[in-house]
Amino acid sequence: MTMQRAEEGLGGCALPIALEAMGERWSFLILRASLDGIEHFEDFQATLGIARNILANRLSRLVSNGILSRERIEGDRRRVAYRLTPKGRDLLPAMIALRQWGERWGGGPPCDKVLADARDYAPIRPIAIQAQDGRTLGPDEICWKLREGRP
Amino acid sequence: MTMQRAEEGLGGCALPIALEAMGERWSFLILRASLDGIEHFEDFQATLGIARNILANRLSRLVSNGILSRERIEGDRRRVAYRLTPKGRDLLPAMIALRQWGERWGGGPPCDKVLADARDYAPIRPIAIQAQDGRTLGPDEICWKLREGRP
Repeated sequence: MTMQRAEEGLGGCALPIALEAMGERWSFLILRASLDGIEHFEDFQATLGIARNILANRLSRLVSNGILSRERIEGDRRRVAYRLTPKGRDLLPAMIALRQWGERWGGGPPCDKVLADARDYAPIRPIAIQAQDGRTLGPDEICWKLREGRP
Repeated sequence: MTMQRAEEGLGGCALPIALEAMGERWSFLILRASLDGIEHFEDFQATLGIARNILANRLSRLVSNGILSRERIEGDRRRVAYRLTPKGRDLLPAMIALRQWGERWGGGPPCDKVLADARDYAPIRPIAIQAQDGRTLGPDEICWKLREGRP
């Protein structure tokens, strides 16, 4: 990418919002647990070992950001389920891209599980930047372009 | 994905490291500026409007994490350039995935620029989870599988 002021490039728009939604460590771990099917306050608490006040705060923030929904459970009105909304589920590609980066560049011990296609159990591909024809693009093969219909 | 304890799934491995590397707001904005070609302390400072002590702290953290390299400039030994390492450049798919998510789900005003293939200026594809054969996989079409050679 060519030199230009950062706010003219990736900035100025959607990225900081995405970062705020999941950049905070606990919010991110809650999201991850949600993707694994955890729904109840007590289960988040037991799984993550997070303080109750912090958990309550982060859950309500994720709800107000539209990433989790807060639903009363049929038949037991005292219990509440926190479930990923479509907006929340749509964070998965970004989360997996981060995970694969961490695996490639190390640090922690390699995970003993990999994400796979549920149809044939073959591992998923590395998340990549792709052209319309499916070619993988590196950082030097992309550029900024004015959106259609803008001067 | 099926219900299981979070640390058996996405957790336990590489993800928290990736998050630490770029989850902090300023570190993330520095990374973004680096991808736009910014290299010098003063240019980061002017572009991001960040306090000098915070900038110095974050730059040295990114260097010690192996995401930026610190290089003396030929011919002017007082000046230093901070450049993305291959490890740093490899964060781009995750950053673009987050950006696209932010654009899809709104919040800020839409950016007037889009990322495009430098060869034909066609916009890049949405970042997606893909099977080995290139099919796009949704959250319900993936599963965890033990890594080859593990019990």
